[in-house]
Amino acid sequence: MRISRRSQVPPFAVMEVLAAANARRAAGEPVISLCAGQPGSGAPAAVRARAAALLAEGDLGYTEALGIPALRRALAEHYGRWYGVDVDPSRVALTTGSSGGFLLAFLAAFEAGDRVALARPGYPAYRNILRSLGVEVVELPCGPESRFQLTTSQLRAACDGAKLDGVILASPANPTGTMVDAAELDAMARWCAEHGVRLVSDEIYHGLTYGPWAGRQATAARHVDAGAVVVSSFSKYWAMTGWRLGWLVLPPELVPTVDALAGNLALCPPALAQHAALAALTPEAYAEADRLVEGYAAARDLLLRRLPELGWKVAPPDGAFYLYADVGTDDSVAWCERLLADTGVALTPGTDFDGIGGARYVRLSFAAPVEQVDEAVTRIVAWQRQRAR
Amino acid sequence: MRISRRSQVPPFAVMEVLAAANARRAAGEPVISLCAGQPGSGAPAAVRARAAALLAEGDLGYTEALGIPALRRALAEHYGRWYGVDVDPSRVALTTGSSGGFLLAFLAAFEAGDRVALARPGYPAYRNILRSLGVEVVELPCGPESRFQLTTSQLRAACDGAKLDGVILASPANPTGTMVDAAELDAMARWCAEHGVRLVSDEIYHGLTYGPWAGRQATAARHVDAGAVVVSSFSKYWAMTGWRLGWLVLPPELVPTVDALAGNLALCPPALAQHAALAALTPEAYAEADRLVEGYAAARDLLLRRLPELGWKVAPPDGAFYLYADVGTDDSVAWCERLLADTGVALTPGTDFDGIGGARYVRLSFAAPVEQVDEAVTRIVAWQRQRAR
Repeated sequence: MRISRRSQVPPFAVMEVLAAANARRAAGEPVISLCAGQPGSGAPAAVRARAAALLAEGDLGYTEALGIPALRRALAEHYGRWYGVDVDPSRVALTTGSSGGFLLAFLAAFEAGDRVALARPGYPAYRNILRSLGVEVVELPCGPESRFQLTTSQLRAACDGAKLDGVILASPANPTGTMVDAAELDAMARWCAEHGVRLVSDEIYHGLTYGPWAGRQATAARHVDAGAVVVSSFSKYWAMTGWRLGWLVLPPELVPTVDALAGNLALCPPALAQHAALAALTPEAYAEADRLVEGYAAARDLLLRRLPELGWKVAPPDGAFYLYADVGTDDSVAWCERLLADTGVALTPGTDFDGIGGARYVRLSFAAPVEQVDEAVTRIVAWQRQRAR
Repeated sequence: MRISRRSQVPPFAVMEVLAAANARRAAGEPVISLCAGQPGSGAPAAVRARAAALLAEGDLGYTEALGIPALRRALAEHYGRWYGVDVDPSRVALTTGSSGGFLLAFLAAFEAGDRVALARPGYPAYRNILRSLGVEVVELPCGPESRFQLTTSQLRAACDGAKLDGVILASPANPTGTMVDAAELDAMARWCAEHGVRLVSDEIYHGLTYGPWAGRQATAARHVDAGAVVVSSFSKYWAMTGWRLGWLVLPPELVPTVDALAGNLALCPPALAQHAALAALTPEAYAEADRLVEGYAAARDLLLRRLPELGWKVAPPDGAFYLYADVGTDDSVAWCERLLADTGVALTPGTDFDGIGGARYVRLSFAAPVEQVDEAVTRIVAWQRQRAR
């Protein structure tokens, strides 16, 4: 029987790496996995304690489609706390991870046949979700000259001939970790509003910033009145990936649409996660998350210190927990497979993020203990020296 | 800025009823809510205990996109236990509720422009999800003469002129609670396979069967080799609505597609729910769920006993926990609003399930304590008598 064409998503190369890493581990050989886009640690203790208490009290049924009012209010306050931005709680929509948020935002904002621009390299699910919904993805190549980020002049050029309906900005970005500053974000948001282009700002890595960019993250939440959509999540900063809880900050005109869509497509986000996440927005949990960030910062410092040994050309890792590096190959999939087989270090081939230039790049996740990152670098350096002979 | 046309979902009338019920409750007036499609009880104790233990141990990151292998295996065994059907664990895909399952199955199986048939009355999210994905919904009116269920001859007639690409069958159905027997299901599955029509079988209310239909539920899992898709969930029988965990049993050709789609659209279902749900498939948890079903059965018996007092014409409530009744009005929305205002009893207008005939019907959920259902009937009977004067 038939399978739809629109559902045909290219497989991720990292899946082969993960399978090989698992086979290696099962055979008793050591593996240092720096593939995953998630912290090895767990949710803040306060979140887990709150969830356990709720389980003992009884149980939770469906919530409102946009999430429990208390958490929408608490997230609105979070925008005041982190950014000094006044967000009305009615604009905050809880979603099933940021994935659920992208789906709802894309469906609500874009028709089949619309054109949406995004940076290449970038998170592959953007283009895969959009394409499954019949949206034309306009991939704009972004290199070192723009810190791998979209620029307004690129958007202007992409509008030449056919109108753009949307643009996805990610800061800090996956896989590069690069950021845009408030002035750039504001300029792009203004340009989008003037040209009827819906700006979707992926802010899932907020809270994870380093070096000169520490604390300098800019939010599009100040532009929702002009039509911008913010997508975020508890997954990364609070290390709550498996809980599947994210959120949107929406322009007022999209709220009723997303509400009705969510009620039909998802019913509600996971209830226990919602109630427990109230404890994530407490001083205790922020402090615990900040200690994790200090750990990533130490791993990042080590990587930058040992970069000359590695000899890689890297995107500036302003935020998130990724190093995106030109490793001097023209087949990063084969390079990663060989590295894993020879050294037990698992990295992600750049082709998953960039079907064209990614053959030269790999992504290294430094959300791992600093000793592991150090050992991985030592192995890679030795392996590269041996290959260069 | 623009909102997409495809995302425009009609609001549910029950939302108005719920808002009025909440306002009434907030004002200190008593409300008996028989609106909700969920049990008032919680997850089995074993599930909650397992979740609490996992929280104490640490935390869970992302899982495989199709769910943890142990739960896929345990669900495959569940099909042997309940139905005597041999299901390969690789065909089982965990999803974020049955909602997540419908989205993945519909995207994988249907193109924009495809035609999918379903029964009217029916669960409104089917048509709302399908329409948001550009699928043409072919609503086939189903009345008492076919127990409110689709028949193969209706499907044959619906193919006259334009091909059908899919059909959604629900047994027990929402809002009617009616079921089809194994012979009818087999005949429809065969007809679908012969005509290249994808059968999607919603089995979310399995385990909830009564009277002559107790234990007589038939699964389309025996037809997956011929292309059928089963959608189910832990929400209803195990009373785990807020956990957002469902599953699909898939034809082999759809497994890789759903795997790749799920990895992009959802990443994975909630991790804690997956690990905890292993405890739902134990003798202890089945027994606890069966005790809840005994409670619904008692409430159903009471309703059927007092039906002459109510004077309603009802669909036979074979399963689920709904009574779908023709209450002799031609405006069920106004009728429900009046009933709530006068008596504090909240029911769901039939218009949410049937935009045409639903104006005569209401849905009563008997997943409530039998004393509450009894008291609700007493109030409705008195109210109807007063109105008839």
